[in-house]
Amino acid sequence: MPTLILVRHGQSQWNLENRFTGWWDVDLTEKGVAEAVAAGELLAAKNVLPTRAFTSLQTRAIKTLHLALEACGRLWIPETKDWRLNERHYGGLTGLDKQETRDRHGDEQVHVWRRSFDVPPPVMEDGSDYDLAADARYAGIEVPRTESLKLTIERVLPYWENEILPVLASGETVIVSAHGNSLRALVKHLSAISDDDITGLEIPTGEPIVYEFDADMKCGERQYLKDR
Amino acid sequence: MPTLILVRHGQSQWNLENRFTGWWDVDLTEKGVAEAVAAGELLAAKNVLPTRAFTSLQTRAIKTLHLALEACGRLWIPETKDWRLNERHYGGLTGLDKQETRDRHGDEQVHVWRRSFDVPPPVMEDGSDYDLAADARYAGIEVPRTESLKLTIERVLPYWENEILPVLASGETVIVSAHGNSLRALVKHLSAISDDDITGLEIPTGEPIVYEFDADMKCGERQYLKDR
Repeated sequence: MPTLILVRHGQSQWNLENRFTGWWDVDLTEKGVAEAVAAGELLAAKNVLPTRAFTSLQTRAIKTLHLALEACGRLWIPETKDWRLNERHYGGLTGLDKQETRDRHGDEQVHVWRRSFDVPPPVMEDGSDYDLAADARYAGIEVPRTESLKLTIERVLPYWENEILPVLASGETVIVSAHGNSLRALVKHLSAISDDDITGLEIPTGEPIVYEFDADMKCGERQYLKDR
Repeated sequence: MPTLILVRHGQSQWNLENRFTGWWDVDLTEKGVAEAVAAGELLAAKNVLPTRAFTSLQTRAIKTLHLALEACGRLWIPETKDWRLNERHYGGLTGLDKQETRDRHGDEQVHVWRRSFDVPPPVMEDGSDYDLAADARYAGIEVPRTESLKLTIERVLPYWENEILPVLASGETVIVSAHGNSLRALVKHLSAISDDDITGLEIPTGEPIVYEFDADMKCGERQYLKDR
């Protein structure tokens, strides 16, 4: 039966430093590497072995994928990378320390930016050190200047429908290695979570989430693989 | 202009142990990892940055690719893996110690198996510990029982013509991370090397080889990137 595995990348350097990251390309920490390897070891232990992989264009998700696949002996499966699985773009907050941002703008405003469904953070200003419009990896793509969760969902779901779902429907075991908010988009859709509730749902790092699909491509409950 | 980069994987555990490897999936040694990283650092230093990647289904080539791409900041480029870029299948010699094989069969016979153009080693016997016919990664593929260099070329070149060359012709900088004999196949074709001469040509591990193509897709001399 078609099986979907979702993995959020392990701890990144800016997770550790408590900075807004978004599309900025930050590497995994040592802990993040260990989390990715453990995710792959769990896939092997539970014999849930991916046959196709999807990930974002961001190093922390790609490395998490590669480390997990190596740990379960599946480094050789086909992989597809796409910007539509990238993290939510954090706009003008990118690079800022979360505590400093709270001190400057107030807890309430920061909470709105982080946890509202459709209020995007301020746009990234022209000339920002974190502007990726000229990055070769995004050639031909209009890099967002900011994104709400709603805007993130609006680019993740068409990719899911057009690229991932058909592969899954052919009977594959698909692994998606991605980010807190691009995975929230998928979990919201698959588990029918409301706009209000999804913003508070934490996707833990390096913990494979599994959905099994029936012959009509209806999916069951989401399961944490460690609990199966 | 279209540019082709060939990289032979870094030292593997069985290179180190002096055993015939072929399709058996052996990991890189620490030295092999360092060679792969150095290859990527050289690509960055010479500003020869891949935009598309091809590799085999074997861990040592895939990891070499990933380590090199990470070292030159290109982990995000599209990659395609295919068995036709695998190492030559060493048949019944797979797993054997090269010196023991010489002791048993004589230097001359082993030299013929290793360095003749069209004499394959003995076929792998049914029930061999190294039989990969049931390996999930080769599902749908008729795994060879042995291969000469000639037979290796006969599967590498159609893949080159049909899959790699069209991508290159679209103006990409293509990196191929592969194996001594699958890369010999490409170098023989691109540098017009005779059947007799190709078997003695050593492709050094972790040393990027570059070919540049003109608008008619004619390629220049092969260059070691370190010498440019």
